[in-house]
Amino acid sequence: MLEDLKQQVLEANQALPKYKLVTFTWGNVSGFNQEKQLVVIKPSGVPYDELTIENLVVVDLEGNVVEGTLKPSSDTPTHIVLYRHFPNIRGVVHTHSPWATSWAQAGQGIPCLGTTQGDYFYGKVPCTRSMTDAEIQKDYEWETGNVIVETFKKQNIDPSTIPSVLVHSHAPFNWGKDPLEAVHNAVVLEEVAKMAYHTYQINRDIPELDQALLDKHYLRKHGVNAYYGQ
Amino acid sequence: MLEDLKQQVLEANQALPKYKLVTFTWGNVSGFNQEKQLVVIKPSGVPYDELTIENLVVVDLEGNVVEGTLKPSSDTPTHIVLYRHFPNIRGVVHTHSPWATSWAQAGQGIPCLGTTQGDYFYGKVPCTRSMTDAEIQKDYEWETGNVIVETFKKQNIDPSTIPSVLVHSHAPFNWGKDPLEAVHNAVVLEEVAKMAYHTYQINRDIPELDQALLDKHYLRKHGVNAYYGQ
Amino acid sequence: MLEDLKQQVLEANQALPKYKLVTFTWGNVSGFNQEKQLVVIKPSGVPYDELTIENLVVVDLEGNVVEGTLKPSSDTPTHIVLYRHFPNIRGVVHTHSPWATSWAQAGQGIPCLGTTQGDYFYGKVPCTRSMTDAEIQKDYEWETGNVIVETFKKQNIDPSTIPSVLVHSHAPFNWGKDPLEAVHNAVVLEEVAKMAYHTYQINRDIPELDQALLDKHYLRKHGVNAYYGQ
Amino acid sequence: MLEDLKQQVLEANQALPKYKLVTFTWGNVSGFNQEKQLVVIKPSGVPYDELTIENLVVVDLEGNVVEGTLKPSSDTPTHIVLYRHFPNIRGVVHTHSPWATSWAQAGQGIPCLGTTQGDYFYGKVPCTRSMTDAEIQKDYEWETGNVIVETFKKQNIDPSTIPSVLVHSHAPFNWGKDPLEAVHNAVVLEEVAKMAYHTYQINRDIPELDQALLDKHYLRKHGVNAYYGQ
Repeated sequence: MLEDLKQQVLEANQALPKYKLVTFTWGNVSGFNQEKQLVVIKPSGVPYDELTIENLVVVDLEGNVVEGTLKPSSDTPTHIVLYRHFPNIRGVVHTHSPWATSWAQAGQGIPCLGTTQGDYFYGKVPCTRSMTDAEIQKDYEWETGNVIVETFKKQNIDPSTIPSVLVHSHAPFNWGKDPLEAVHNAVVLEEVAKMAYHTYQINRDIPELDQALLDKHYLRKHGVNAYYGQ
Repeated sequence: MLEDLKQQVLEANQALPKYKLVTFTWGNVSGFNQEKQLVVIKPSGVPYDELTIENLVVVDLEGNVVEGTLKPSSDTPTHIVLYRHFPNIRGVVHTHSPWATSWAQAGQGIPCLGTTQGDYFYGKVPCTRSMTDAEIQKDYEWETGNVIVETFKKQNIDPSTIPSVLVHSHAPFNWGKDPLEAVHNAVVLEEVAKMAYHTYQINRDIPELDQALLDKHYLRKHGVNAYYGQ
Repeated sequence: MLEDLKQQVLEANQALPKYKLVTFTWGNVSGFNQEKQLVVIKPSGVPYDELTIENLVVVDLEGNVVEGTLKPSSDTPTHIVLYRHFPNIRGVVHTHSPWATSWAQAGQGIPCLGTTQGDYFYGKVPCTRSMTDAEIQKDYEWETGNVIVETFKKQNIDPSTIPSVLVHSHAPFNWGKDPLEAVHNAVVLEEVAKMAYHTYQINRDIPELDQALLDKHYLRKHGVNAYYGQ
Repeated sequence: MLEDLKQQVLEANQALPKYKLVTFTWGNVSGFNQEKQLVVIKPSGVPYDELTIENLVVVDLEGNVVEGTLKPSSDTPTHIVLYRHFPNIRGVVHTHSPWATSWAQAGQGIPCLGTTQGDYFYGKVPCTRSMTDAEIQKDYEWETGNVIVETFKKQNIDPSTIPSVLVHSHAPFNWGKDPLEAVHNAVVLEEVAKMAYHTYQINRDIPELDQALLDKHYLRKHGVNAYYGQ
């Protein structure tokens, strides 16, 4: 079942090393079938070049394995929380890509300093708060999802316009309308994280992007008045 | 028509990923036929490996599509303004190459700190002023060209001796006597942007290049007394 | 003799350039046979692509060559000291990988700033003290091993939970349960060294990883309650 | 004539892009035949993949072309000055490799901060003083050589133990007992320049390498008591 989604999830996972987003097995992509309320995800600890349609794992939104003989990614509960709370997302990717992870380790969101970020993110990419010891010790991976959802809710951010987050002291999660778009956003995040770092080293006093310029760039690629592309 | 120019524009666009100047489709090259007053440019959002002679777009200096079924690059008006105002340029390239873009995001031109830059740029590569909300909201891509032209005019810079500019909060544009030379200059810009960054991290107090040394390097490669090359 | 171990040592040495951990011949891997108390190690100064099962060198724990016609790595005594003092390690790797070496040159251990490091290292990777002139001038490579052992003893660090060290003004050594795991740890060290560097450039005041988060990540991959992987 | 030397010079030039030391044609290697007092050098502005035994240029120590139809590298006089003044060097390489060039642009030598540098350079790699306008305007490339020689003489540095120099505001020159060793040294220089940069960003107060440690590392690879390699 879910053969099309499995094919997408397979290709999206294989794209991670191709885009140099991962060292060893430090990343995983999932895809979501809304109708059946099922998630297809990478098995835990399996190298990308050993992935096949057959060894992907299918889980329900409680985290129960519905199909597959391998254990799903240990980050599966985080993916599930995102599918439960963020409407219309159909792909999630987690990596430890080094530039985005450096910002996450610094406990800071990635400020929107240029049109490159504005083309994909409608503002700053937020960083979650530190998790409490209780959250860490019990249901850690579920709570990681919860603290992401809390961040977007409290800061009143629409996850469809900011498709990435930095988990404090950890690394980024990204999402999209399908698994490949989530990976696409992960590539963009890494690139803008790198450029924001260098920008601040040159000029720490530069303000975030002017709102008119952000509107222009984000909206020429998104929404009803978009005019980028064919 | 313009088959030779199309071939050059095709090759110049294909050179962008080869020189690692672009992520995804974040860059575009055009070429200009002076006699016919026509521009050949990359179609918007099309991956470089799907480009062909046939899907390039021909536009006139008003931005009207003269040939081609796809939409031209959304940055086309900026290219056109440069062809209109900068004499003798026949190729323009825009990228979001990360080192040059970091300087653009910092709102600072790239100081001429060594002979590598002096071999190609007769001084500092300027950064434009911030655009006004009015400029951004109306005819944004035309106004981007206008603010570039204004920068060269106000600072009395000859665009034939400084073939690149940083657009504030955005990214670089480069030009040349043909599309491939414009790409060549984009590669040089990225390299000198990287080295200027590291130079300032080592020694923020280093002054710009001595004028005699700049004259020596620039003029041994350009003008009537050049003696570099065959 | 020791054909299996030689095969592992060969592959582990060949992995060094593949993972971009070495320039020229700046690194060496050894393996240890506990039963026979013998070490298989790379010959000194031989390029990785000229290594064969036959030109590896076998030495005893006094440093005597037991088999092989070439001289062993000049760092052999350091490897031996580690095998003598750190229980259960069966592979050692030394490189001058640039990010870890930069921290070693700075005389600072690599602080644990994120879960990536916490997944492999149960805290900070220590840096040894400077060696005395007497230690340097007499039995330098043996004393390098001794100062590593001293560091772990004095700071009460269990080398099985922190499988790497930075030698002050020099470069890292890494170990593991076999030669390939030691190389795996060397790759991780380089990656976390890079990210710790960038993290501190963004936010020098960030504290080291919360203990609960470190416990969670380290122990979900190590020990009886591990649940990462298959 | 000089077929062996030409072959070496050809291979050494081809090694420059392989080791990522050059962008476009920004580097050149020469070799010196002591007996005939002739230099074989790369022709100016020719891409590395178009180099052949036949298009290399032979010049005498006055800079006269003795064989070849192309113009020699514009940096030829600098190479010649080094062959004239530094005994026993038989290969010279000039590049604009980015890390070393960043130090040159900062006007600072590369401090010896670790054993990696100590293995090849018996201390700091010096940076020349700024050249005077008179030196720049008349016989620039000859004077570039002269200021290098002056630097070594005034600072009492033996060029056989420090086989590289940074030319202020410009870029490095390196040498060796043959063209390939000069390129080898250029690779090492770039690597230690990168690591010194990062070391200082982590800890600007770290002193240069302890003399005993420098002696140990340099002398275990050089001189009568060397014991590294086979």
